[in-house]
Amino acid sequence: MGLHPAVAAVRRPVRAALGELPERPAPGPRPGTNVVVACSGGADSLALLSAAVFEGHKLGLRIVGATVDHGLQEGSDVHAQHVVQQMAALGVDETVGVRVKVEGGGLGPEAAARQARYAVLDQVAERVDAPVVLLGHTRDDQAETVLLGLTRGSGGRSLAGMRRGFDRYRRPLLDVSRTDTETACRVEGIEFWTDPHNSDFSYTRARIRHRVMPLLEEDLGPGVAATLARTADQLREDMEFLDDVASSTYHRLTGAYGAATLPVAELASLPSAVRRRVLRLAALAAGCPAAELFREHVLALDALVTAWRGQRWIDLPGHRRARRRDQMIHLEAAPTGPHG
Amino acid sequence: MGLHPAVAAVRRPVRAALGELPERPAPGPRPGTNVVVACSGGADSLALLSAAVFEGHKLGLRIVGATVDHGLQEGSDVHAQHVVQQMAALGVDETVGVRVKVEGGGLGPEAAARQARYAVLDQVAERVDAPVVLLGHTRDDQAETVLLGLTRGSGGRSLAGMRRGFDRYRRPLLDVSRTDTETACRVEGIEFWTDPHNSDFSYTRARIRHRVMPLLEEDLGPGVAATLARTADQLREDMEFLDDVASSTYHRLTGAYGAATLPVAELASLPSAVRRRVLRLAALAAGCPAAELFREHVLALDALVTAWRGQRWIDLPGHRRARRRDQMIHLEAAPTGPHG
Repeated sequence: MGLHPAVAAVRRPVRAALGELPERPAPGPRPGTNVVVACSGGADSLALLSAAVFEGHKLGLRIVGATVDHGLQEGSDVHAQHVVQQMAALGVDETVGVRVKVEGGGLGPEAAARQARYAVLDQVAERVDAPVVLLGHTRDDQAETVLLGLTRGSGGRSLAGMRRGFDRYRRPLLDVSRTDTETACRVEGIEFWTDPHNSDFSYTRARIRHRVMPLLEEDLGPGVAATLARTADQLREDMEFLDDVASSTYHRLTGAYGAATLPVAELASLPSAVRRRVLRLAALAAGCPAAELFREHVLALDALVTAWRGQRWIDLPGHRRARRRDQMIHLEAAPTGPHG
Repeated sequence: MGLHPAVAAVRRPVRAALGELPERPAPGPRPGTNVVVACSGGADSLALLSAAVFEGHKLGLRIVGATVDHGLQEGSDVHAQHVVQQMAALGVDETVGVRVKVEGGGLGPEAAARQARYAVLDQVAERVDAPVVLLGHTRDDQAETVLLGLTRGSGGRSLAGMRRGFDRYRRPLLDVSRTDTETACRVEGIEFWTDPHNSDFSYTRARIRHRVMPLLEEDLGPGVAATLARTADQLREDMEFLDDVASSTYHRLTGAYGAATLPVAELASLPSAVRRRVLRLAALAAGCPAAELFREHVLALDALVTAWRGQRWIDLPGHRRARRRDQMIHLEAAPTGPHG
């Protein structure tokens, strides 16, 4: 009996991810190398784990399955214990189950849980000296991320979705559908867990997954997830280039004057896509908090350059302000005190 | 009694559009200048027309209302006649009603109707020597256009929505909600028409308008249209810059070799966002039809540059192919004949 197509669809990109490291001249991981696979107990990460065991062992790799208990739901410890047993039953060489205490610290619960999760995965990878950590995000997760970004309205960056890889992390299933991971699990007799709250705790993401995506597929055709993922791929490459251009332009312009001073004439000659990014970088460098710096602030800064009508300064978040004086834009702390 | 906020919301951007021409050094239209307003009889274009009459007459402009009967629906001639009467009643200085014959010619019905409509508006503007033609697209139209683009999956360009202006056309209501145009009409006692088929004949757009947008607003909040429109604004400026960079890079690279020949080493050194756009431009220049040239073709071309494994050529739409030979990419007509 041949390999089931869904199992093949999961194994193929996992094989590719294990077979090569990102830097071309370097060889793939040597036999005996540890590879960490993050596993929540959902279909996506269990299918990933199973494929990693199969493909990894052929390459002589050791597979370390890691699960993180965020402790945010009743019974999450029992669930984590079950995932550890499942991972062992699937043939991993080592299991790690870590309970973390998620603390907000200004982040939303979803971001805080994500931060805690990556901190654990980083530690595990360090400890076993793993060059690669595999994450189970699928094409459907990517599509949801794009729609989520669309609701934020912060431009291409928020639509560019998740990267295929960063640092030691890889997302080999980013072109694989969630349905394929579920089918792969069923075909292989793996019982998977469906998180009633969605593992990332986001109400908005849950609405997107359970209501918006099904409607989009019904109305616009079943290819919507793939289309959204393809858009994200293109935007990611576009945004990386734009950010690179902006960063080098910012450093060139500020080199002569200091980080918080930019010459109006040179700013005005830049294309607006670059100029606005440069102004944003300058505002961040001047101390504006990224989470409070919105498009409207950047446009107000931009107007100081391109549509100046003599306004003395504009206010920016984080008690900062920008002035135009002597053909320069100056970003500075706002004066404090009763009349500040 | 003060001005109703919805009427003010419509008039404000119309006043701005009439008060200035795009080139800063040039003055606005002189008194007596004709301004054409395109009017379908819907709330958006009737509110636009009414605002243009009010604001335009204050500036001494002549307002020419133009309506186009596409003849695609039963009774469209009667409707067009009614719109002409409405425009006259709203105080325009001249009315133009034109019936066109929409011919597909390879275009879909929506694109064909749009082409016919702009041809008429161009002619009217030429005849009355109007420097500006106003179009009534609202923020909701823009949001729908972004979602429509999202379903196409052709990257940032398809998400960038409609431009605020091009050639002599201006879209002053692109930040105004459809609801405001409807309210403005009601407040001013203007009876507007709701096209049962949607004036642009697109089944997909109708689904987006009547099903997807309401659900997004219900699930993600009422600000979704504004968010989508803001994303489009940012992407438009990004895409313009990227297209400019790609175009100048393409001309630089092909200058030495001819339009269909590109040096591999220089291509390989470009950021992928630029390189893939350059390859797309080369394929178009070589005769690949734009409508058939997809991302997958561009990626196959790209692989010839960055992941060449000795493949002799790749096939492209329009009976074209690309070869890598002597460190150059050559785009050429595919050989014809039984073995071609």
